[in-house]
Amino acid sequence: MNGAHALLETLRANGVTTIFTNPGTTEIDLLAALDDVVDVHPVLCLFEGVATGAADGFARVTGRPAATLVHLGPGLANGWANLHNARRANSPVVNIVGDHPDAHRLLDPPLNSDLESLTRSLGGWHARIDSANHVARLTSEAVAAAYGPPGRSATLLLPSNVAWEEVTATPAPWPLSVRSPRETFDESTMVQALNCLRTKRTALFVGGDAVDAGQLELAQRVCSATSARLIMETFPAIYDRGMGVVSPERLIYLSDFARAQLSELDAIVLIGTAAPVAPFAYRRGPDHLVAEGCEIISLCAPGGDTRATLAALVDSTAAGALTLPQGEPAPAPTGVLNPLSLAQAVAATIPEGLIISDESVTGGLHVYGATQFSRRHRVMGFAGNSLGFGLPAALGAAQAKQGRVLALQADGSMMYTLQALWTMAREELDVTVVALSNRRYAIVEFELDQVHQGPDGSASRSLVDLDNPALDLAGVARSLGVPSERVTNADELVSALLRSYATPGPTFIEAMMPRGLG
Amino acid sequence: MNGAHALLETLRANGVTTIFTNPGTTEIDLLAALDDVVDVHPVLCLFEGVATGAADGFARVTGRPAATLVHLGPGLANGWANLHNARRANSPVVNIVGDHPDAHRLLDPPLNSDLESLTRSLGGWHARIDSANHVARLTSEAVAAAYGPPGRSATLLLPSNVAWEEVTATPAPWPLSVRSPRETFDESTMVQALNCLRTKRTALFVGGDAVDAGQLELAQRVCSATSARLIMETFPAIYDRGMGVVSPERLIYLSDFARAQLSELDAIVLIGTAAPVAPFAYRRGPDHLVAEGCEIISLCAPGGDTRATLAALVDSTAAGALTLPQGEPAPAPTGVLNPLSLAQAVAATIPEGLIISDESVTGGLHVYGATQFSRRHRVMGFAGNSLGFGLPAALGAAQAKQGRVLALQADGSMMYTLQALWTMAREELDVTVVALSNRRYAIVEFELDQVHQGPDGSASRSLVDLDNPALDLAGVARSLGVPSERVTNADELVSALLRSYATPGPTFIEAMMPRGLG
Repeated sequence: MNGAHALLETLRANGVTTIFTNPGTTEIDLLAALDDVVDVHPVLCLFEGVATGAADGFARVTGRPAATLVHLGPGLANGWANLHNARRANSPVVNIVGDHPDAHRLLDPPLNSDLESLTRSLGGWHARIDSANHVARLTSEAVAAAYGPPGRSATLLLPSNVAWEEVTATPAPWPLSVRSPRETFDESTMVQALNCLRTKRTALFVGGDAVDAGQLELAQRVCSATSARLIMETFPAIYDRGMGVVSPERLIYLSDFARAQLSELDAIVLIGTAAPVAPFAYRRGPDHLVAEGCEIISLCAPGGDTRATLAALVDSTAAGALTLPQGEPAPAPTGVLNPLSLAQAVAATIPEGLIISDESVTGGLHVYGATQFSRRHRVMGFAGNSLGFGLPAALGAAQAKQGRVLALQADGSMMYTLQALWTMAREELDVTVVALSNRRYAIVEFELDQVHQGPDGSASRSLVDLDNPALDLAGVARSLGVPSERVTNADELVSALLRSYATPGPTFIEAMMPRGLG
Repeated sequence: MNGAHALLETLRANGVTTIFTNPGTTEIDLLAALDDVVDVHPVLCLFEGVATGAADGFARVTGRPAATLVHLGPGLANGWANLHNARRANSPVVNIVGDHPDAHRLLDPPLNSDLESLTRSLGGWHARIDSANHVARLTSEAVAAAYGPPGRSATLLLPSNVAWEEVTATPAPWPLSVRSPRETFDESTMVQALNCLRTKRTALFVGGDAVDAGQLELAQRVCSATSARLIMETFPAIYDRGMGVVSPERLIYLSDFARAQLSELDAIVLIGTAAPVAPFAYRRGPDHLVAEGCEIISLCAPGGDTRATLAALVDSTAAGALTLPQGEPAPAPTGVLNPLSLAQAVAATIPEGLIISDESVTGGLHVYGATQFSRRHRVMGFAGNSLGFGLPAALGAAQAKQGRVLALQADGSMMYTLQALWTMAREELDVTVVALSNRRYAIVEFELDQVHQGPDGSASRSLVDLDNPALDLAGVARSLGVPSERVTNADELVSALLRSYATPGPTFIEAMMPRGLG
């Protein structure tokens, strides 16, 4: 048994049995060990950003970490952007980075780099393993660190000499990660929060772990009892949606609108998430979303025990039972395809238990509103705002085998990690991709319009235009092994969605949308 | 005039007039300023790794930096791997990273990250600009730092408030970067080197700046006068090749062979490059390529004055003129397509002045040997060994408008940065891509075979197999806007190459090769 075996056995013992990987030569001994530790399943990705985004999606739907296995500094760097998204979603992820043997690293071979600074820049937990005998302990510590709470990336640097070295002090049994308990709320903060809820114009601002159906119901009961508003963060890691689920206000992405949305509040009570922050700041200011003088009370930080906190709020406010409004989604639309009919097509066809990976950016603006009465489903939000999240997260979610996944995917952002399509085909995953083809970086165009109107043909305008040449997204998907079609009206989209939900394996639907924000 | 204008004007004044970019909202004021500073040309890329690799390719063929413009930490991280390649090639590159306004950054908005650690991990020069009045000075310092020598990445973090702030202290004229002189050789080291050349089994080991035709000739004259061997590093940043150019031995990539190649040497004199290091180390060892006891003399470090050093060696050894061997490349091949016939097809058709971007990995093994008597051309080597170099570097080289570019591109590594194809189409660049489709990570498979023979269908074996599903590379290229075809024998490849060289704009040729190392 060598270090590579010890690593895989410890992962397996801790329930980490899926590894999304783009391996290289420093990971050879781990590849070989995968032939022995057969219940750890490696999933090949053609780019590391696919592997890390898939691990994020897997963690969001299961609550458990997957591992990634990448090659040296460049491999980790290629996976960095989706680890950023995972960090913002508090997803537990265990990264294994193959490195040169220690002695060889000192010679500075071509692929050597400042891996320590790069790892540190991820902002999670990390360790370099220095001996095969330490592999099991550090791996279980990595799993524990990944779980948090809150969840985070835990990165193990594994020099290949450690992978190939024999383990001489076999740990038996394999060490299990010790999970830290979730912190509960602070009593004095609870008093403060209750005082606000009872006496001021207050919002419960929920996110993170607090947005499953059960907790949204608790939160809504508190709000109904106290006339508070229930507002959900813009892009939760994963939230329940549809029939039988409380439908909270959602914080608007565009900061001018979000500021107006929050302007009447005297207090915001945070449950499971941090205070709302504008994604960007403008010269015209202000930086803050929340009005001056609005009290911000962090009752339960990310990773805290949101359920116990909400239950205590229910008790303290003597909040009664809830009658949820009943309704139906709008009927399946016909005619022109635009963000509204797209949203209606999605809402009308959602099968029970669907998982939506939402990187729709501007094209999916109306989906949240349209899906209140759709069949019950879950949505993974664009927590870290780093483009290239949607397809890899859909891949990872589908690999968890909890039902079909729908990726609502903007065209510009799809291009960052389109290699995910190949792995969907390879693993025969039940993913439907709807690519919203508006041939623009529409969000950048929108922001550009705020400060500067360059004429058509100007340099600035050309830099948000994806139509020269036109991207044939359906062609890309087909070339990567995923059956694909292009739809140009709402009727075709509805049919294509229904067909795809009834067909095992991946499907790609290129939805031709109006240009720009539409 | 705001900070964004000052940045572009200073770049322009310093001859940096091409910006490869994937911009976002924090770069809006720079986009707007591009409409005013019209002789700075932005080139839109759909992924940041394309932008950084293009800047590397541009620098290699011109000797001048291009700029990149990327969005926050994730944008820089996406460009990291090709900045690693640029670092190993000592290419001058100026990176501009848009960041949040300082006040907003402290609120930790969703796209915020540890940008300082990430920037530090690049290993180059970097600065955060804190005021619009400091933009011009720091930009000129960045250009100077990028030039080196040796060339490097210089990264400017530009908060958007600095971009939109008015410049109140206009520098007139725009500050020009002050270039550091190249260091010349040390006299005592020269004495030592000459002693070895005259008395020991010695190799001149050349790379970096020392591998253009003129310097290769100087080096060969020294070797002919002293019976030394002339060996070139495996993957120089850019070297001259073909008729009328000295054809040195090239250090073999695979380390067992390289070790044998160097085993008879008592001394190695380094010119323009570091001592040879194996790309990877194995359990069976040893780590070193160079035999124990072999003297290593660094006569001219990377960035040093290689030409003056070689000229001094010529003088000291009274090296006479050279008669280069005459010859012809093998005739255009027919029949089966394999690494040998591929090399012959390339060699027989090279037009004068072609620039080859070589990320052929295993499939291009025979190209170096076959091209000794081809028409004169230049080759950009895979200096940093980080996959995803070839297409972006070809794009950047073609953007320099010094003639047609041929990308010899392995299939597995093409998938990291395939988005480059779209920009080739958009900019109507004269690039011919030959994608060597062997449906394997053949180099990983080769290394895997060294340590472990998993049977077909085993996990380890499946992780080097790109054939499930088959990648339709020609289809991918077509979908991204590049005319493409697939060739299955040498005759077709020769015809396709000749056609592409005669046709303006990009062409993509998928060459169906034998599986694996072939």
